Amino acid sequence: MPSFYANFNLTDEYIDVYEEEFHHIHRVFRLAKGDNLNLINGKGMYANGYISGIYKNYVRIIINNVKEFVKSENRIACAFSLLKNKNDLLLVEKLTELGVSEFFPFISRYSVKNTKENTTEKMSKTAISAIKQCDNPYLPVIHKTQSLPKCLDIVIQEGYKPIVASERQKDFFLNDIELSGNICIVIGPEGGFHDDEFLLFEEKSISTISLGNHILRAETAAICSVSQIIFQNLCKDKKWF
Amino acid sequence: MPSFYANFNLTDEYIDVYEEEFHHIHRVFRLAKGDNLNLINGKGMYANGYISGIYKNYVRIIINNVKEFVKSENRIACAFSLLKNKNDLLLVEKLTELGVSEFFPFISRYSVKNTKENTTEKMSKTAISAIKQCDNPYLPVIHKTQSLPKCLDIVIQEGYKPIVASERQKDFFLNDIELSGNICIVIGPEGGFHDDEFLLFEEKSISTISLGNHILRAETAAICSVSQIIFQNLCKDKKWF
Repeated sequence: MPSFYANFNLTDEYIDVYEEEFHHIHRVFRLAKGDNLNLINGKGMYANGYISGIYKNYVRIIINNVKEFVKSENRIACAFSLLKNKNDLLLVEKLTELGVSEFFPFISRYSVKNTKENTTEKMSKTAISAIKQCDNPYLPVIHKTQSLPKCLDIVIQEGYKPIVASERQKDFFLNDIELSGNICIVIGPEGGFHDDEFLLFEEKSISTISLGNHILRAETAAICSVSQIIFQNLCKDKKWF
Repeated sequence: MPSFYANFNLTDEYIDVYEEEFHHIHRVFRLAKGDNLNLINGKGMYANGYISGIYKNYVRIIINNVKEFVKSENRIACAFSLLKNKNDLLLVEKLTELGVSEFFPFISRYSVKNTKENTTEKMSKTAISAIKQCDNPYLPVIHKTQSLPKCLDIVIQEGYKPIVASERQKDFFLNDIELSGNICIVIGPEGGFHDDEFLLFEEKSISTISLGNHILRAETAAICSVSQIIFQNLCKDKKWF
């Protein structure tokens, strides 16, 4: 059964869905009155319902039951440079599937893609599409694109411990770090970080780790590191979500 | 410096490069006589050289020095269903970066993409492109597309222990399995495996594991599971390659 994104609450008996999701339900999936569907509100709730009526610019859905999910402690976030060829969107898609809570896009010295225009909006669409595909009840927060130093400040303010994945680091891996609390993995642009940026990490006492002895593209490094953090979270808590 | 794929040996003083890689060197990168470049032979060797001459249909490269890499024990492979929308190519690209040794494509009951035509050839091109991008000296072997039962037989014959990643499995993760020797992660199609196929896994005593409490697309499950196996390999051997 297809899932759609809608802003319902726990006690709602029905919800009217407009705009993009209306289009998806009505035009793309061609669902009709009486058809069942699933709804995700992006805030941890997952509902089952059916279409009671289709109108000019909205569809009314009667909600049968709502299931609530609780996000585990030890949240994972990702700060990443904007990437060429929509690889930043691929990163957002895959990390949303994996249950990442927040994204902090940035522009650093060697970022090839360095326009802030529209980036967040496209990432949001990608994330919504990913939670629908994978029935993930949580929509990650996507922060505004910032300069690297500003981005790191916000990451720390938001309660995350940043960890930089870098091909310069050797023999020091994620298992060499005490991974507790909320972790934000930091992924540089295609060309890596500048020397001054490594100095900035040192100043801020931010650890740098290696993901292994192969060179990875930025988006692969992001998926790989998050998968490894999840693995460690699952070792401690089999219900980690 | 760009890297190219060429079939050289340890003792070669020069090599003539034809066809696709000739096109890449000459037309795409527009390299000229005297330019330096790197070569990968896909069998663990990485060379540095320069162009001594460009001819009608080949380029001659003088090899300066060759570096040889040794692949670690505990090899990783992936058996996977063909996937829609080039997601199988994305899987091959990302897993090649991560250092996977062999790919075993298959068609199972719910495989949406089920044509064997050209699949292996496209995957080979994707893998070559990935090793060039990431300076990975080993080109993975890509086996012919088979039915699932035949594929599993070949995986076992080739010395791998198959492990199935499935959303049906709960609370039993990669860290609950003794991961020693060569591991082949098995990834089903978009719609998962059929009941009969799960029976087949049981008959063959093949373990089924979960990758966590989120539903992942097939290609994401592949990247996630390989990243987690690499993590465990690195815990045992920091030089795992």
